[in-house]
Amino acid sequence: MTTPVAILGASGYAGGELIRLADVHPEFEVVHLGAHRSEGERLGIVHPQLAGGDRILASLDVGDVIAAGTALVFLALPHGESAGPAMALLDAGVRVVDLGSDFRLDSADRYLAAYGSDHPFPEQLGRWAYGIPELFAADIEDADRIAVPGCYPTATVLALAPLVAAGLMEPNGIVVNALSGVSGAGRSVSVGLQFGAVDESVKAYKVLEHRHQPEMERALEAVAGSPARVSFVPHLIPMQRGLLSTCVGAVAPGVRTADVVAAWHAVYDGAPFVDVIGSPPETRWVVGSNRCLLSAVVDERSGTVVAMAAIDNLVKGAAGQAVQCANVALGLPPELGLPMTGWMP
Amino acid sequence: MTTPVAILGASGYAGGELIRLADVHPEFEVVHLGAHRSEGERLGIVHPQLAGGDRILASLDVGDVIAAGTALVFLALPHGESAGPAMALLDAGVRVVDLGSDFRLDSADRYLAAYGSDHPFPEQLGRWAYGIPELFAADIEDADRIAVPGCYPTATVLALAPLVAAGLMEPNGIVVNALSGVSGAGRSVSVGLQFGAVDESVKAYKVLEHRHQPEMERALEAVAGSPARVSFVPHLIPMQRGLLSTCVGAVAPGVRTADVVAAWHAVYDGAPFVDVIGSPPETRWVVGSNRCLLSAVVDERSGTVVAMAAIDNLVKGAAGQAVQCANVALGLPPELGLPMTGWMP
Amino acid sequence: MTTPVAILGASGYAGGELIRLADVHPEFEVVHLGAHRSEGERLGIVHPQLAGGDRILASLDVGDVIAAGTALVFLALPHGESAGPAMALLDAGVRVVDLGSDFRLDSADRYLAAYGSDHPFPEQLGRWAYGIPELFAADIEDADRIAVPGCYPTATVLALAPLVAAGLMEPNGIVVNALSGVSGAGRSVSVGLQFGAVDESVKAYKVLEHRHQPEMERALEAVAGSPARVSFVPHLIPMQRGLLSTCVGAVAPGVRTADVVAAWHAVYDGAPFVDVIGSPPETRWVVGSNRCLLSAVVDERSGTVVAMAAIDNLVKGAAGQAVQCANVALGLPPELGLPMTGWMP
Amino acid sequence: MTTPVAILGASGYAGGELIRLADVHPEFEVVHLGAHRSEGERLGIVHPQLAGGDRILASLDVGDVIAAGTALVFLALPHGESAGPAMALLDAGVRVVDLGSDFRLDSADRYLAAYGSDHPFPEQLGRWAYGIPELFAADIEDADRIAVPGCYPTATVLALAPLVAAGLMEPNGIVVNALSGVSGAGRSVSVGLQFGAVDESVKAYKVLEHRHQPEMERALEAVAGSPARVSFVPHLIPMQRGLLSTCVGAVAPGVRTADVVAAWHAVYDGAPFVDVIGSPPETRWVVGSNRCLLSAVVDERSGTVVAMAAIDNLVKGAAGQAVQCANVALGLPPELGLPMTGWMP
Repeated sequence: MTTPVAILGASGYAGGELIRLADVHPEFEVVHLGAHRSEGERLGIVHPQLAGGDRILASLDVGDVIAAGTALVFLALPHGESAGPAMALLDAGVRVVDLGSDFRLDSADRYLAAYGSDHPFPEQLGRWAYGIPELFAADIEDADRIAVPGCYPTATVLALAPLVAAGLMEPNGIVVNALSGVSGAGRSVSVGLQFGAVDESVKAYKVLEHRHQPEMERALEAVAGSPARVSFVPHLIPMQRGLLSTCVGAVAPGVRTADVVAAWHAVYDGAPFVDVIGSPPETRWVVGSNRCLLSAVVDERSGTVVAMAAIDNLVKGAAGQAVQCANVALGLPPELGLPMTGWMP
Repeated sequence: MTTPVAILGASGYAGGELIRLADVHPEFEVVHLGAHRSEGERLGIVHPQLAGGDRILASLDVGDVIAAGTALVFLALPHGESAGPAMALLDAGVRVVDLGSDFRLDSADRYLAAYGSDHPFPEQLGRWAYGIPELFAADIEDADRIAVPGCYPTATVLALAPLVAAGLMEPNGIVVNALSGVSGAGRSVSVGLQFGAVDESVKAYKVLEHRHQPEMERALEAVAGSPARVSFVPHLIPMQRGLLSTCVGAVAPGVRTADVVAAWHAVYDGAPFVDVIGSPPETRWVVGSNRCLLSAVVDERSGTVVAMAAIDNLVKGAAGQAVQCANVALGLPPELGLPMTGWMP
Repeated sequence: MTTPVAILGASGYAGGELIRLADVHPEFEVVHLGAHRSEGERLGIVHPQLAGGDRILASLDVGDVIAAGTALVFLALPHGESAGPAMALLDAGVRVVDLGSDFRLDSADRYLAAYGSDHPFPEQLGRWAYGIPELFAADIEDADRIAVPGCYPTATVLALAPLVAAGLMEPNGIVVNALSGVSGAGRSVSVGLQFGAVDESVKAYKVLEHRHQPEMERALEAVAGSPARVSFVPHLIPMQRGLLSTCVGAVAPGVRTADVVAAWHAVYDGAPFVDVIGSPPETRWVVGSNRCLLSAVVDERSGTVVAMAAIDNLVKGAAGQAVQCANVALGLPPELGLPMTGWMP
Repeated sequence: MTTPVAILGASGYAGGELIRLADVHPEFEVVHLGAHRSEGERLGIVHPQLAGGDRILASLDVGDVIAAGTALVFLALPHGESAGPAMALLDAGVRVVDLGSDFRLDSADRYLAAYGSDHPFPEQLGRWAYGIPELFAADIEDADRIAVPGCYPTATVLALAPLVAAGLMEPNGIVVNALSGVSGAGRSVSVGLQFGAVDESVKAYKVLEHRHQPEMERALEAVAGSPARVSFVPHLIPMQRGLLSTCVGAVAPGVRTADVVAAWHAVYDGAPFVDVIGSPPETRWVVGSNRCLLSAVVDERSGTVVAMAAIDNLVKGAAGQAVQCANVALGLPPELGLPMTGWMP
């Protein structure tokens, strides 16, 4: 018997990818697509690339979602707009997989520091599974509330968690430079996302103050068992999709490239979507798929490791990982219905 | 029982798309991947975007293809290199779907005019089905030899054939300006395809002398029953995939936009991949899928029609259409295993 | 003695190019930069690429422009906003070079047909010089009111005017397909100009109803002495700058490529910015400069000519041509202060 | 009296920019353009964007260069090909400004470590001025041999040198992530520089083993007076020009953003091309000009500074800086003939 799923925030980029994936998932039946500004529009107008364009986008109303018989909901809403619907849906017994940032941090203090305001449901923080199935499967199995990580933390934590967990790498003094395609900024219209502002240019933004920085620290602390400190600099580059996280830190004495590779293999050898490769990954190799490619170089002279992770920010960095989490929560194989193949060129 | 299929020319862009599609096709079993320069390489090196990267590319040797039990072969080889293997495979009872240009024209004379040399098997010309299933299904059903059209003719003929067949449009004096992404030029390395030569620039090329021009004329004559004359100007634009054909010609007196739309609907209403829409199509709406979007504007003042068609040059313009032809030849539903959904952004 | 010039609409793309060019012009002194929404801002914020970023953008107020001692004003304002200031400045004895579309057409009827509304100063239409100095120098010399053509008409008319004037080409039944970089759409923010909507895609727009179509017809009629009919299809392609116009039409019997080339040479041999070349022009060859490259192919079989013109839409298609017109109006050498060299890659 | 200059390596990207700049330089007369594979070609074929396309590219022969009366030569040759001609030209009394890497390092040992082979003229290492005029003007004044830095070291050293010189920042443990447009890889043809390999993708390359890393260390040691250690990760991003260096390191206790800014102002306030700005620089703001934009953020919590520098890799990172060095060596104003204005969009 299939699971009736709903997608709220269906008109955004992550929402579109959720529809693309859920439509072909053998165990999902899409019963409700909810949107805010696009409510009442044909899906084909909002996402011309999708089949089934005659479907009409419905509302974000929680009552409608419940009335549709939804058993699991994907929330792909702007920051701050997940918390309310999430709690109402949980109260009604609907499983919630939230792609937003509302429930990703693990304490009210960290939330306040990151967002500058109090969380509306502070007691919830720490109760949500942090949705990287390769690392936190035990928390996700049978969970009714899952916070899907941001795109930058997904790539970064997949690269670094096994290293700090194994004591190969210091959880402090980590420098993360990440480069993202423009779709990571979402589908809203702004001066800074015009073609004329993005094409043929690159910039860093939110230097050392991006909200994904505490999220990375939270996740690394969970595996390290001690405080983590990351200096995070995201960059916007002129492409649609793809995210590369280049992480630099200090290794323990004597650690070599082979040790890093071995630590990754120890964690990811059974994982269908994470591959360790021998050269720096190119984002075009994973675009469209749910895969994550890892590669590392250790400079023994200086005791420095460069760990690189490439993902598609909208798939493994958002919609794909959300479906993967739902699979795990529902007791299905993690890879069920998810693309192992991307597109290139 | 599935059909054992082989792909020769597996290392190119069209070859990669054929693998992407054939791997998930419910009635195909891929039994042989043959390549020239990449023979012996891991698939994952040549096409890092594909699952099953541990497969080793085999040879182009016809004996090997036959020995693998192949019942149907897709040829994605450079111009002039299909004819020999095709004839050998046909002799061995293997069905041939050729994505190359060797068998697309219908007479030895037209071939000589277009290519400047005699065809090695002139008696074959005209015996191959011309593989646009929406227009020539009767020829393709049960065919053992199918010539899949070029990308430009696919879009152009889908737009124009119903109009000239219905007498709405003159088959002479047609001006076709088409714009293609760079993957249409194939995967070979050249100065003109370097990033520095393509990015942020546009050019026309092979003006009035592209070999797809006689192919368009041949196909339009087949439906018009009278000579067709096309002036074809292809352009290379800075994007990977996607093809837009903008066709301008004279309509019969009194013909209006609604008549063009009606003629298209009459032909394509049962066709799963061709949609008539009310505004100029954008190529990003079809990239990744096997769809073709059509739209038209008639200027009654001057008796001019602008008919536009958008496709993904590697899917409906190559690999997708090849699979669609194979489906029809094998008596399967035309859309079986083919993507209705693409990707965006 | 230098000429005091003002630029109104300084914050747009054309305005930025006007500043770039006027700042280094040996006979201009920039005395006023006026803007609407950016009034009061530092130039360096609005156009970070320009030197002299500490200048403050002033108002669009005509009184301020006159008070600054302006002798010649460049108007780079949205459609419909030039007419009022232009007439007030002319009344004050200021020479007006208008980059907008308000005064480009030659009759009230054509204006009404093109814009759907009456012109506020209908008696002015036909009194403004049409600013293509290579073709209409006599009108521009000493003119106090010059309408600088749109980017598409500039390229198209430069290609076609010598051919229709010499009787080599029919002024009817001309098909113009043009491809423009995104800066042609101006600097305003819109959904359709977001990176996610433009990158890796192409579309036609305003098919057969772009306002540059009657402008082309008006200019061709001026040289042909008989009615001209153009079917114009503009396309938006994923690049910042550059414009290619691919024009197809019928030649008179016996006309060959060499005749087209000769007709161009006859008109342009003394023109510093127009070059006839032997292969299809690439827009990157002219980006940044005021040059226009022409190339043609005649198919004698069908009596068809393909005439191609490449320009930088912001330079020869806007600011550069405006400065060239100002030079001619002021009795200076046409090329004075204008870039012959562009940039590549 | 103008200085007769020659450019060897005229057909590459840096060569093209040297011609663009030298042609308009008020104190240079270009007397010889030498190329290897393009010898005998028209300049207009090799660099269609440049004026004066009828010039014929001459040879790389040193005798020809001397015979042309050259007083100063710019060498823009592949690695390893500068040393021979440079020494012969110096022997003939010609001033040499080398854009290649042959003479950038300061000792035979460092050269051997970086390049894996002995230098052909080891006694020359350390005798060449390192050509960043803002930092090493005293070495460049009147120098007859100048090694122009690589593009990555230019941006990185401009950002970091004032900080390590002032003791604000540790010269060890510096992490440099840099992002470059594709023109930085030169104009040669390769699989990895095809449009299909670069567009819509990003990758790191030569991780911790790029030859610009010892060059950065050499320059920082020169100002720090103590060993410097840099972990350098370059990235290739899909754009033509522009380079952003994002440098992360440890500050001395108590150092704040304002201290970094003050240290920069102390060094660069008289420098025409280096500007300190208050937000992360975007490369499009400097493309085409010789400018360098700096910006910094200090995280006092962790004692970390992020220092960013943006340049045009072909101008301030190559040809522009070479001309600036020549100006200083010849006793001319450093900014003479160099562009303060770039282009955008």
